[in-house]
Amino acid sequence: MTSQQLTQQILEKKSFLCIGLDVDIQRIPAHLANAEFPIFEFNKAIIDATHDLAVAYKPNTAFYEAHGVNGWQSLKKTIDYLNENYPEIFTIADAKRGDIGNTSSMYAKAFLEDMGFDSVTVAPYMGKDSVEPFLAFEDKFAILLALTSNEGAFDFQTKDSDGKPLYAHVIETSKTWENADRLMYVAGATKPEYFADIRKMLPNNFLLVPGVGAQGGSLAEVCKYGMSENIGLLVNSSRGIIYASGGDDFAEKAREEALIVQQEMEKILALR
Amino acid sequence: MTSQQLTQQILEKKSFLCIGLDVDIQRIPAHLANAEFPIFEFNKAIIDATHDLAVAYKPNTAFYEAHGVNGWQSLKKTIDYLNENYPEIFTIADAKRGDIGNTSSMYAKAFLEDMGFDSVTVAPYMGKDSVEPFLAFEDKFAILLALTSNEGAFDFQTKDSDGKPLYAHVIETSKTWENADRLMYVAGATKPEYFADIRKMLPNNFLLVPGVGAQGGSLAEVCKYGMSENIGLLVNSSRGIIYASGGDDFAEKAREEALIVQQEMEKILALR
Repeated sequence: MTSQQLTQQILEKKSFLCIGLDVDIQRIPAHLANAEFPIFEFNKAIIDATHDLAVAYKPNTAFYEAHGVNGWQSLKKTIDYLNENYPEIFTIADAKRGDIGNTSSMYAKAFLEDMGFDSVTVAPYMGKDSVEPFLAFEDKFAILLALTSNEGAFDFQTKDSDGKPLYAHVIETSKTWENADRLMYVAGATKPEYFADIRKMLPNNFLLVPGVGAQGGSLAEVCKYGMSENIGLLVNSSRGIIYASGGDDFAEKAREEALIVQQEMEKILALR
Repeated sequence: MTSQQLTQQILEKKSFLCIGLDVDIQRIPAHLANAEFPIFEFNKAIIDATHDLAVAYKPNTAFYEAHGVNGWQSLKKTIDYLNENYPEIFTIADAKRGDIGNTSSMYAKAFLEDMGFDSVTVAPYMGKDSVEPFLAFEDKFAILLALTSNEGAFDFQTKDSDGKPLYAHVIETSKTWENADRLMYVAGATKPEYFADIRKMLPNNFLLVPGVGAQGGSLAEVCKYGMSENIGLLVNSSRGIIYASGGDDFAEKAREEALIVQQEMEKILALR
């Protein structure tokens, strides 16, 4: 998928919502827990109930790896289901990978080519040769961790070096890498001043924004400081939507929650 | 396994060799390529041929994930084989994970509890709450990336902040985390001056050292600058050993290469 196609989808759906499929098997309704692939069945129901309100889905690989082979199969079934039934949806493998060059190449091929995701999240600590292999695929993206939304973000990411925080060095350096136009960035919503700084450095890139809702970030502030001319935002919500209800009505309630977010996004888009 | 048990094994085997099981299926001898689990069959032969010369094995998860469900099964079979047949061996899941707290907990449980590895490599970029979940398991270890051996290590890891490189901040900050005695560190062998600096900050922790051999580091220099009172070193070799031959004699040739390294280690240990 190109970023223009993603923007087009955002304008059509009046939504820049990404739904995080971080499925904890202990929170799956009882009637699904006995299925052969319970996490996939859960995802399928959530996707069917929300696909017109969201533009992206983001399974976090930890929740699948935790179940070994069965979890891995559920991840594959989920991405296949999305690609077959909703090809307009942008898919993100939230894997936070990053290793020496030949190893990153293996990860990149696994997620972007073999599994068929549109993008994968990547950690920057190991530098250029750990990220560039993820940028080798046409119309696919690496989403680089810049500023994350957790408390630990302030341990190293905001540490000053030559008058600039580490995340700013990560952004500026990454812009010099080969195929840098295939980069998107994770930018946490928890501090508006950082967010404005990041958008200034990245006028055209998509930002994937965790931390709205449950983690305390405000959608209005994210949009005020972070929206670009082409919108350029994917705002993620995971638990607030997929666990809206723990009962048999989980998919219906997930749609209700997604609709609330989508309607807020629609209002913001109308005011542009 | 405790670090005392690991040291004991090192003294008995006169070796601190870690063998990296980074198995590229295209480099597996033809007669194994048609097995149901070719990577596992390859690993099994390598392990059987070298287990008395090495104290640790380190499969890099990328090489398994690249083969989807079959690869994941090969990884599980490999760790099970090690734990059942050579319980004295220290096992490392080279996964370089790291995510927000509840997600890191899933990864930690998957590798350290469900799969049964003794340790897992972890990336520091997301800070304290992304690493601490890996330190919650008794007699298990998180091996934190401090200074890696690739070119990209110089993009951010050596960047100066308040008069110290980022890797030094990572080490110092991590020492304040809960269960910090369950931390080991990745310390690349490519620059001796950095290596001495790291050992000074970490007089007692084990260092996992990539970059010796193929990547240009010298074993003698690593030991000169990096050996602690309790040795405290695991020196990794991957391709130099497992691909010593591409023919049917791959395991035998791997043993020959491992023996060369072990004998060099034995000499160094005798001079202490």
